[in-house]
Amino acid sequence: MTVSSHFSSHDLEFIDDDEFHEECGVVGVWTAQDAASLTALGLHALQHRGQEASGIVTYDGNNFHSHRGLGLVGEVFADPRVISALPGGVAIGHNRYATTGETQIRNVQPLYGDFEFGGFAVAHNGNLTNAQLLKQSLVRRGCLFQSSTDSEVFIHLIAISLYTNVIDRFIDALKQVQGAYSLVALSKDMLIAARDPLGVRPLILGKLPNGQEENSWVVASESCALSSMGADFVRDIEPGEVIIIDNNGVRSIHPFSGHTSSRFCIFEYVYFARPDSVIDNKSVYMARKKIGAELAKECHVDADVVVPVPDSGVPAAIGYAAASNIPFELGIIRSHYIGRTFIEPTDQIRHLGVKLKHATNRAVIEGKRVVLIDDSIVRGTTSKKIVEMVRAAGATEVHLRIASPPTKHSCFYGIDTPAQEKLLAYIHDTNEMCKLIGADSLGFVSSDGLYRALDEEKRDNQNPQYCDACFTGEYPISLTDHDMNLIKSK
Amino acid sequence: MTVSSHFSSHDLEFIDDDEFHEECGVVGVWTAQDAASLTALGLHALQHRGQEASGIVTYDGNNFHSHRGLGLVGEVFADPRVISALPGGVAIGHNRYATTGETQIRNVQPLYGDFEFGGFAVAHNGNLTNAQLLKQSLVRRGCLFQSSTDSEVFIHLIAISLYTNVIDRFIDALKQVQGAYSLVALSKDMLIAARDPLGVRPLILGKLPNGQEENSWVVASESCALSSMGADFVRDIEPGEVIIIDNNGVRSIHPFSGHTSSRFCIFEYVYFARPDSVIDNKSVYMARKKIGAELAKECHVDADVVVPVPDSGVPAAIGYAAASNIPFELGIIRSHYIGRTFIEPTDQIRHLGVKLKHATNRAVIEGKRVVLIDDSIVRGTTSKKIVEMVRAAGATEVHLRIASPPTKHSCFYGIDTPAQEKLLAYIHDTNEMCKLIGADSLGFVSSDGLYRALDEEKRDNQNPQYCDACFTGEYPISLTDHDMNLIKSK
Amino acid sequence: MTVSSHFSSHDLEFIDDDEFHEECGVVGVWTAQDAASLTALGLHALQHRGQEASGIVTYDGNNFHSHRGLGLVGEVFADPRVISALPGGVAIGHNRYATTGETQIRNVQPLYGDFEFGGFAVAHNGNLTNAQLLKQSLVRRGCLFQSSTDSEVFIHLIAISLYTNVIDRFIDALKQVQGAYSLVALSKDMLIAARDPLGVRPLILGKLPNGQEENSWVVASESCALSSMGADFVRDIEPGEVIIIDNNGVRSIHPFSGHTSSRFCIFEYVYFARPDSVIDNKSVYMARKKIGAELAKECHVDADVVVPVPDSGVPAAIGYAAASNIPFELGIIRSHYIGRTFIEPTDQIRHLGVKLKHATNRAVIEGKRVVLIDDSIVRGTTSKKIVEMVRAAGATEVHLRIASPPTKHSCFYGIDTPAQEKLLAYIHDTNEMCKLIGADSLGFVSSDGLYRALDEEKRDNQNPQYCDACFTGEYPISLTDHDMNLIKSK
Amino acid sequence: MTVSSHFSSHDLEFIDDDEFHEECGVVGVWTAQDAASLTALGLHALQHRGQEASGIVTYDGNNFHSHRGLGLVGEVFADPRVISALPGGVAIGHNRYATTGETQIRNVQPLYGDFEFGGFAVAHNGNLTNAQLLKQSLVRRGCLFQSSTDSEVFIHLIAISLYTNVIDRFIDALKQVQGAYSLVALSKDMLIAARDPLGVRPLILGKLPNGQEENSWVVASESCALSSMGADFVRDIEPGEVIIIDNNGVRSIHPFSGHTSSRFCIFEYVYFARPDSVIDNKSVYMARKKIGAELAKECHVDADVVVPVPDSGVPAAIGYAAASNIPFELGIIRSHYIGRTFIEPTDQIRHLGVKLKHATNRAVIEGKRVVLIDDSIVRGTTSKKIVEMVRAAGATEVHLRIASPPTKHSCFYGIDTPAQEKLLAYIHDTNEMCKLIGADSLGFVSSDGLYRALDEEKRDNQNPQYCDACFTGEYPISLTDHDMNLIKSK
Repeated sequence: MTVSSHFSSHDLEFIDDDEFHEECGVVGVWTAQDAASLTALGLHALQHRGQEASGIVTYDGNNFHSHRGLGLVGEVFADPRVISALPGGVAIGHNRYATTGETQIRNVQPLYGDFEFGGFAVAHNGNLTNAQLLKQSLVRRGCLFQSSTDSEVFIHLIAISLYTNVIDRFIDALKQVQGAYSLVALSKDMLIAARDPLGVRPLILGKLPNGQEENSWVVASESCALSSMGADFVRDIEPGEVIIIDNNGVRSIHPFSGHTSSRFCIFEYVYFARPDSVIDNKSVYMARKKIGAELAKECHVDADVVVPVPDSGVPAAIGYAAASNIPFELGIIRSHYIGRTFIEPTDQIRHLGVKLKHATNRAVIEGKRVVLIDDSIVRGTTSKKIVEMVRAAGATEVHLRIASPPTKHSCFYGIDTPAQEKLLAYIHDTNEMCKLIGADSLGFVSSDGLYRALDEEKRDNQNPQYCDACFTGEYPISLTDHDMNLIKSK
Repeated sequence: MTVSSHFSSHDLEFIDDDEFHEECGVVGVWTAQDAASLTALGLHALQHRGQEASGIVTYDGNNFHSHRGLGLVGEVFADPRVISALPGGVAIGHNRYATTGETQIRNVQPLYGDFEFGGFAVAHNGNLTNAQLLKQSLVRRGCLFQSSTDSEVFIHLIAISLYTNVIDRFIDALKQVQGAYSLVALSKDMLIAARDPLGVRPLILGKLPNGQEENSWVVASESCALSSMGADFVRDIEPGEVIIIDNNGVRSIHPFSGHTSSRFCIFEYVYFARPDSVIDNKSVYMARKKIGAELAKECHVDADVVVPVPDSGVPAAIGYAAASNIPFELGIIRSHYIGRTFIEPTDQIRHLGVKLKHATNRAVIEGKRVVLIDDSIVRGTTSKKIVEMVRAAGATEVHLRIASPPTKHSCFYGIDTPAQEKLLAYIHDTNEMCKLIGADSLGFVSSDGLYRALDEEKRDNQNPQYCDACFTGEYPISLTDHDMNLIKSK
Repeated sequence: MTVSSHFSSHDLEFIDDDEFHEECGVVGVWTAQDAASLTALGLHALQHRGQEASGIVTYDGNNFHSHRGLGLVGEVFADPRVISALPGGVAIGHNRYATTGETQIRNVQPLYGDFEFGGFAVAHNGNLTNAQLLKQSLVRRGCLFQSSTDSEVFIHLIAISLYTNVIDRFIDALKQVQGAYSLVALSKDMLIAARDPLGVRPLILGKLPNGQEENSWVVASESCALSSMGADFVRDIEPGEVIIIDNNGVRSIHPFSGHTSSRFCIFEYVYFARPDSVIDNKSVYMARKKIGAELAKECHVDADVVVPVPDSGVPAAIGYAAASNIPFELGIIRSHYIGRTFIEPTDQIRHLGVKLKHATNRAVIEGKRVVLIDDSIVRGTTSKKIVEMVRAAGATEVHLRIASPPTKHSCFYGIDTPAQEKLLAYIHDTNEMCKLIGADSLGFVSSDGLYRALDEEKRDNQNPQYCDACFTGEYPISLTDHDMNLIKSK
Repeated sequence: MTVSSHFSSHDLEFIDDDEFHEECGVVGVWTAQDAASLTALGLHALQHRGQEASGIVTYDGNNFHSHRGLGLVGEVFADPRVISALPGGVAIGHNRYATTGETQIRNVQPLYGDFEFGGFAVAHNGNLTNAQLLKQSLVRRGCLFQSSTDSEVFIHLIAISLYTNVIDRFIDALKQVQGAYSLVALSKDMLIAARDPLGVRPLILGKLPNGQEENSWVVASESCALSSMGADFVRDIEPGEVIIIDNNGVRSIHPFSGHTSSRFCIFEYVYFARPDSVIDNKSVYMARKKIGAELAKECHVDADVVVPVPDSGVPAAIGYAAASNIPFELGIIRSHYIGRTFIEPTDQIRHLGVKLKHATNRAVIEGKRVVLIDDSIVRGTTSKKIVEMVRAAGATEVHLRIASPPTKHSCFYGIDTPAQEKLLAYIHDTNEMCKLIGADSLGFVSSDGLYRALDEEKRDNQNPQYCDACFTGEYPISLTDHDMNLIKSK
């Protein structure tokens, strides 16, 4: 077996990759029979948060066990021998959006270290904004980094902490990092779950029913993982809260008390979260429908059909259609058979303008004025192609409506965005964008419209209710590394 | 390399498999640069017709080249060396719904034989009803069967035909077989495409644009493959028609003239075909919407939301919602990350009632009277689970509406159906079905309603316009093997 | 899984391939618990007869089971699930020297067919000399060939035979083929083993001890397989003999009675067979030592050390050293870590004259007059390299002695030889060969010397005791295909 | 791709594993075109020093590149894309005797770290005797260990060193470790090679010829790697010497000056090194022959044949045969087709006493008094089996002669030995051993005989010329971890 046997230089390059990518999903289980299986099922439900790699660490009372691999959860954990090799009643798991290769398997989480106090594993969703600065001083001190992930900083900070018990060391580490994080961690005595003081990324607590062991809990990035795990929703973990689950049950610590306030990522509602998740008591699906309705109000246009760009545009399109009383139709069909590798086309074939991922449904488009609903515009390349396709299928007019404000700023809190110079909305105003994309008209929901869809009166510009830095450029957490030029732009 | 390295005894068994399965899709290209690539792209667009195996045969003017593998098209043909090993300007390809293993790779099409007149490859969508009888006499004659597919009968009939040229031999073979078939075949001189006299399975002709070579044609099971191949629609191939494409262009033969009439599979409109395909000038998507509208008329119920069972129930649900003026909502979310293998759950976990493929979206279901729209009921196990899930998500009433009449009879023309005794509608009437499934009410579209959705006034009981044997038991082609007990029931 | 996932265009090309290759080994077991395992162990012991592919067919009383794969026996059958999928108390197996790829897996034996009388599997060591002629008429008759092996002719001849029982059909087939064959075949009622009338290739019968079932037999290409299988030697199967093993025990038929005489391949003693095998009561190892002794007598030279080209030259070198009283030394070390694939060197590295397979042991060569012993010269490229290496290691003289007469003629009876024009001894006399190879002297054992080493007084030129066509060009079996130009020269 | 996809619980367990295992081989190249290829070829020649895993790190002037995998060098580096992904003119490589699995890939060397001064890679042959003690204090200090290898201690010691330049840090680390090591290391500016003060493990310096770049050097564990790399021997690296190769050429440092003396591992001559290697101006092959001659003198017995246990016993058997004037014969044949995985036999088959690795050559054994020559006795299980096999092949007497003194003590300097309690010579005297093994007589070469074979007059008991702790229990380097009970016995 060679570890770097997958070469993917051509992978996916033919497939349009003009999307934002959530970088991770996390799961924890304490305690259940078949904790590894249960964790895998939870990770499966969080597959949309990271499709490139997956890992699980378990503890069986004596030893930690780990399996990490590149691929979908269903691939990495399909072999029953893999699950058998992960015994124990407690587990944490991680999905990752990442690339392939040996050098990269190092980066697949959960990360694990043998500490003076025993083994410790961490899985992280988010991104630290002072990781490079911390890394510099850690390296100077003699710490060796084995991965190129920000997340490894946690591990080293815990390792060098002078506190004696695990929780104190963990909190000591938390206090030194800046950025967005939803963490699950596993020691031999406890499962820990933590959210950063602003609660940028989601994290929820659930309970396994009786029939499983009595003191059985799960944590997961989103509530949609609960039904996959047969668990019930308990509550969102709060911004700045640290949850400790051990044999005595669940305990909560607020190490940042006084300094926290919620600035949850508004884009989770727009695009990242699964529509059946409920975050902070708000249904993601309903939020998207309401954004669609706001959009219909704010950017009305006379048209014959409302067509979503599947799958992410569907709920907003349903909302738009209902509010505007224009029929909702599946005018674009999306193929779900495209995996991590695919046929690499020759130039000859590229020139045919072949479309692999989307196909138009001419029957509902031909001769029609089409309102096309998408969640966002990143580089604009997809939007341009889709508009062309819809026109080629006979649309007489194509009006593009976007269920978020223009994304003009990069995310530094856990979302993979292009460099700012590549964001279409950063380099062009709406009119120019419309021309470049080739639409007859282009409209975005307003910032206030988006906040209204989330049941706010409007955006509170003094204390914004959400992190909306990608729209506004108002970054609620310092961008230390960025400001010190410690990270390369893409 | 070992050929039977995939062991799949546990594959998919956890995943609900209560569906009908189309058994194949076919593609042919004459002539194009990168014919193999183009064929692979066409097969990708036909992936819904068979996801378990795929193969392509090309001819480069001197030699035939073949590659067949188990898996999705994108997996089987992802390695650029595979495509490089398939040179030539003409090609045929095949998708298959089939099982894994060495013994099974024999069954992956296209089938190929070295004949006296040279190489000949055949790819077949459909099923022969006298294959076993023919096979018996061929074996008695000394013919050796290398696969267990019905399709191999074609190859042997061609081999032993006393005619001298390829087309005469091919037609000689066609005249001996009974059943449903859409075929593409490749010799060194021509590409042949043929449909059985009743045209049970679809097959269309397309044209590659100039820029590619001038005399460049494609054939494919469905029109949805054309946009993937950059080709334009020309026409449906007619029931009983044989199309010959060679360096002189396209020619048509009707060897069964006088004995053909169209009995196209009505279930292709209901479920099998991709919604963006157009068959016999009728949009599949529009047909499904109309079925939904008929269903709303025939089986009205007061309700708060219309929820499709995704993905197949979506167009009918849109039609139902529009006709009934009840809001359409995505109340069920389907995971598209389930591949051919998956995590095998322990019993412990099965008992948690874990759902992998579908999840409910409680926000649009809770407290609502739900009309649930699905395309058909096979064994009923899925319907039962879905109804349970929807109730568990808080629905106050669950009314199940099915966009086809009750399926009471097995298909012998190319669809994988359970034995008749396992079809819920065969063993129970609608009331009993409703109770077993646990719905508050259950309704099917009527036979005439279905025909109306296809723009017929009603079913012509003397000369039915479609093959609807699965609903009516009226089999338009003799079931020779079945009647002679030459095939085992499942 | 894709079947042709191994691409080996570069495989081995760097590794000197200037050798003859035995094309197959066969094994049969009737009856034993774990017949598949036992067969695999027997095939392992015959690995030297074919290293590229391997297959086993078993019968369990109800069904035949087959597994075939590319690679060493230990690789193809390493997965315990493979063996589990081969249940049954009877089995046949085959090793093959062959190439890789999907098109080639068709050629991996045992070949199997579903006949009117049931399943039948055949494994063949040897080569037919009228296979193409037979194939032509079989194809004309409508038989479809699935492989490109000569061996498939057997299967079709059996299929079309008008006899009713298996043995009669089998013998009917044997009587139509010309060439060399040692066959094992399996039907649901019996295991059959057969050698061609001249017994060109080896085949022996063995018995499993009590403790296994009572009526338990094995057949194998060479006796060296017996200890791997825990079986005892019974006897050589005779030229022209057909052995039938069924529940009544072992029976023998001589269908060619009157027309057989032994012309066993003399090169099996020289090179192909494993040294610990005993063929026709003669130890292969002892035969090789005696050839070495003859060589010492016939081509004496004053020297300081006798160095074998390992591994095949070792026994002859031991014999030479003993007869000449010159010390035997391991002056060349052979790497056994070279598998089917290997690092492909850049041109840069090729120019370094890198040697992967052989290395010299300077300590025993430097300053010495070396007698180098090899089994044969094919193209001469290896001999040239080895002589250069030995000189580079400081030998003052290098005298090459070959333990067989000059090989001037291609083999048509089951050995992969280059075309005659590429055989160094065909295009050059010994003096020229010596110069080309760069040795100080070159000597071959004489034909009579070789026969003496096999306990004959000398070669009987009227009725040669062995097939020695590769040395003499006297082909004891008609070369029908070759004479009719039905096979391409290489 | 999943990383731990290989499960090898059954691997090799059927294959007798009663041998010592060298734990590593190392190679370094500075500078050459295709440095990675060249390194792979060198590792291939050192394959006998570690067959389970292999890795290479290169530096291309800008970046470090790494590929590590489980398997033979020829497998890990067969794919040309792997070599292409290792650009650069300098490289180090490592072979490892190790186990499989994801957790283990961490342990495959070269180890690599990103330090304050840049990247640094280390490959290590040997074993540290205070690694656990160092590790304890490093972990206490907050260092995180990513592998379970002793070698990682080097990396951390370098990381935390307060010296500023690479060499000073490296030497700082060397001065803190105890044990045996031959190291190669690579920074962006230099290749470093070092041997421990006693030079327990081998390491040599070679030079690439002109034609390659001028300042082109290689280092390797043994001289046998040089011909594979097209390089010339320069000299052994001295005990305690540190060699630095950079763009200015080769420099030498002796950081331990005054404290070094040679205690080279005598067992390298007996068994580990390849026979064509020359170590400290002594041919390994000639040394083994001389041991055989000493053995013939010290433990003479009347016999008919001398038979080596292949392959390691061959040179000593040649020496024994020459000295005793008893004929040397290949009475045991060894299969070279056994790889890392193999067929797992059923119990049924185990009881047949199947032999996979060795087979007897009855023709030279039957009726003979046999002197059997092996290099050493570990647990004795192999010896017992071999003696049984030789008797079963008809030997009238079997006299076992061992080309080393009794191995009574575990090695702590880089050789994988069983716990002392499992060493047959520790728990039994020679008479008992002889009985247990079932031989007619058993003899070992004496300690002085072994030293004589290495051109010493005798063992200097005050200052032994070699490390012979496995025979004498005199450990020349402190066993700190062992004495402090920091390592588990096996």
